[in-house]
Amino acid sequence: MKATIKDVAKLAGVSFKTVSRVINREPSVGEELQERVWAAIKELNYQPNISARQLRGAASFIAFIYDNPNSHYVIEMQHGLLAECRAQGYELLIHPLAAGSGDTMADLEQLLSTGHIAGLVLTPPFSENPELIAALRERKLPFVRIVSGSSDPAEPEPCIYVDDYQAAFDITDYLAGLGHRRIAFLGGEDIHRSSVERRHGYLAALAEHGIDEDPALIVPGEFNFDSGADRTRRLLAMQPRPTAIFAANDEIAAGALFSARINQVAVPQELSIVGFEDSPFSRQTWPKLTTAHQPNGDIAGSAASHLIASIRASRNGSAASHQDSPDSDASLPDNGFRPQLVVRDSTCPAPQ
Amino acid sequence: MKATIKDVAKLAGVSFKTVSRVINREPSVGEELQERVWAAIKELNYQPNISARQLRGAASFIAFIYDNPNSHYVIEMQHGLLAECRAQGYELLIHPLAAGSGDTMADLEQLLSTGHIAGLVLTPPFSENPELIAALRERKLPFVRIVSGSSDPAEPEPCIYVDDYQAAFDITDYLAGLGHRRIAFLGGEDIHRSSVERRHGYLAALAEHGIDEDPALIVPGEFNFDSGADRTRRLLAMQPRPTAIFAANDEIAAGALFSARINQVAVPQELSIVGFEDSPFSRQTWPKLTTAHQPNGDIAGSAASHLIASIRASRNGSAASHQDSPDSDASLPDNGFRPQLVVRDSTCPAPQ
Repeated sequence: MKATIKDVAKLAGVSFKTVSRVINREPSVGEELQERVWAAIKELNYQPNISARQLRGAASFIAFIYDNPNSHYVIEMQHGLLAECRAQGYELLIHPLAAGSGDTMADLEQLLSTGHIAGLVLTPPFSENPELIAALRERKLPFVRIVSGSSDPAEPEPCIYVDDYQAAFDITDYLAGLGHRRIAFLGGEDIHRSSVERRHGYLAALAEHGIDEDPALIVPGEFNFDSGADRTRRLLAMQPRPTAIFAANDEIAAGALFSARINQVAVPQELSIVGFEDSPFSRQTWPKLTTAHQPNGDIAGSAASHLIASIRASRNGSAASHQDSPDSDASLPDNGFRPQLVVRDSTCPAPQ
Repeated sequence: MKATIKDVAKLAGVSFKTVSRVINREPSVGEELQERVWAAIKELNYQPNISARQLRGAASFIAFIYDNPNSHYVIEMQHGLLAECRAQGYELLIHPLAAGSGDTMADLEQLLSTGHIAGLVLTPPFSENPELIAALRERKLPFVRIVSGSSDPAEPEPCIYVDDYQAAFDITDYLAGLGHRRIAFLGGEDIHRSSVERRHGYLAALAEHGIDEDPALIVPGEFNFDSGADRTRRLLAMQPRPTAIFAANDEIAAGALFSARINQVAVPQELSIVGFEDSPFSRQTWPKLTTAHQPNGDIAGSAASHLIASIRASRNGSAASHQDSPDSDASLPDNGFRPQLVVRDSTCPAPQ
């Protein structure tokens, strides 16, 4: 049976009118009450029947800003954002941008000029661009950043951080524990902080195991299949060859696997390969890839949840900040994530 | 150098004021002129600096309605839609729905009640649902449908059709030409018309080659990896086995390839496999998949282009129909597409 607004009121322990005020985003309801009502709406999967008239004046679109050619990442992020946006009465608009094009802020201004954007979800590299952040701050539009980092940057705006450093440390530590000493690292574009963090984690684990850094084994490139295939071809021509490859994402790893097959190098017997992300590819290829599980949907859901809390706070007249109102965050999911190692069939002890 | 509105006026051979009217979607400009101005805007990649005030009252969001778990399909569609929407001053909102949930129209009503939706892009199975189409017609909101079919249904609204029947015929004809007689067909959910059309094309080609239909080789299932892997496992247990599998999409084919590997059946020597879509997976796996190239980006771009023309026509007071104003369609891309066979390494002549 479909939940009604009365069911929501009962579960939240508030009046019908309060639920209606919350749904219509009237600023007269306190934050604690608002959170309670939204929690009840989510639990009952109540679909508020919002008419155009009720919504008039309240921007109800959240824009997802990204530049990432990795389909699985983008789709998983979209799904996580959509789940939270829908539950809280927002629609999701997608606005991919080319990070290299330079005119990001001008493009965003145009998007914002439509006048219906309540807030932005920024992913790397935009979320890691100080000029862009400064410009948005000046614009006073709520936004949430998803960044690569080991701790909360503790800025006025909400931020979701993903601990790529530690995850990369864990992967490299695992390979070294299998006896690998010649471990290559295939990174992505350094404009993505995640690539830098993963490289640093890799280097720290090598140091921990007393393995000297070999610059020839750290091959710069891009976060895609072709770059992974290319670089692996070059690595396999080295004497001695590396016995393991840590690819900074699953697409690079897919390319590495492909080149190993073409060169008739057995995976994992002669060459262990680890990816990063836990994309469907990693589970569907043969051998299945050892990788780090990056919970993109949860990361995105948390980002949307923090952003919407921030939008409500700003409409309530309090500072648009999650830092200033710690109480209202009690029900929000955590904002720190650490990708976890998933061991499958593409890794084994180093050959003798 | 960035193009200005004056550059656009010069290229289109119209006044500055006319360009401004077109950008602001004032109904006073004739369709032919409008098309010329938008063509110039696209050619120069001019970014109109649309202020909130200018846009007031004109809905500028197009919603993409879909239910498809295939990431690559969704992303390619989004990219095609975005390219056309951006060029013409629209933002894209994504609104995936669960086709099975039943309450599609109620959900759409809620989306439309935001009051800023200029039109909808419908993909299967929503685009193939007569009740939904009837409800939208009554609502008088412009929409475009993308459907599986061999010809334009010639309805009042624009429709993009993809000839899955002929593409499936071509694939099966190719396999039969390689001497295969036991060709299995792994379809998807029949709620997707494309699955039905592909099966019909397969059956027609079998008949053309004098091959009797064998119901045991037509295994119903879903458009995904697990379903492909499952059904292939069962096919490989048959005596005699099929010598070729036509998978109705690349994900099913990926599952088929996986099961063949697990069962140590050599592809293509003992078993030819063909997919459908030309997804990145088909190019990145080993052996690379023979498939049909489905031009998702072009299909989506054409859909957006026809929809926007329809939105303009409806704002100009003419019927919101591409059928009623054939002249204005002269510059639009064609609305019929036929996926083309791409032969790679997963197929070879039937074993003796």
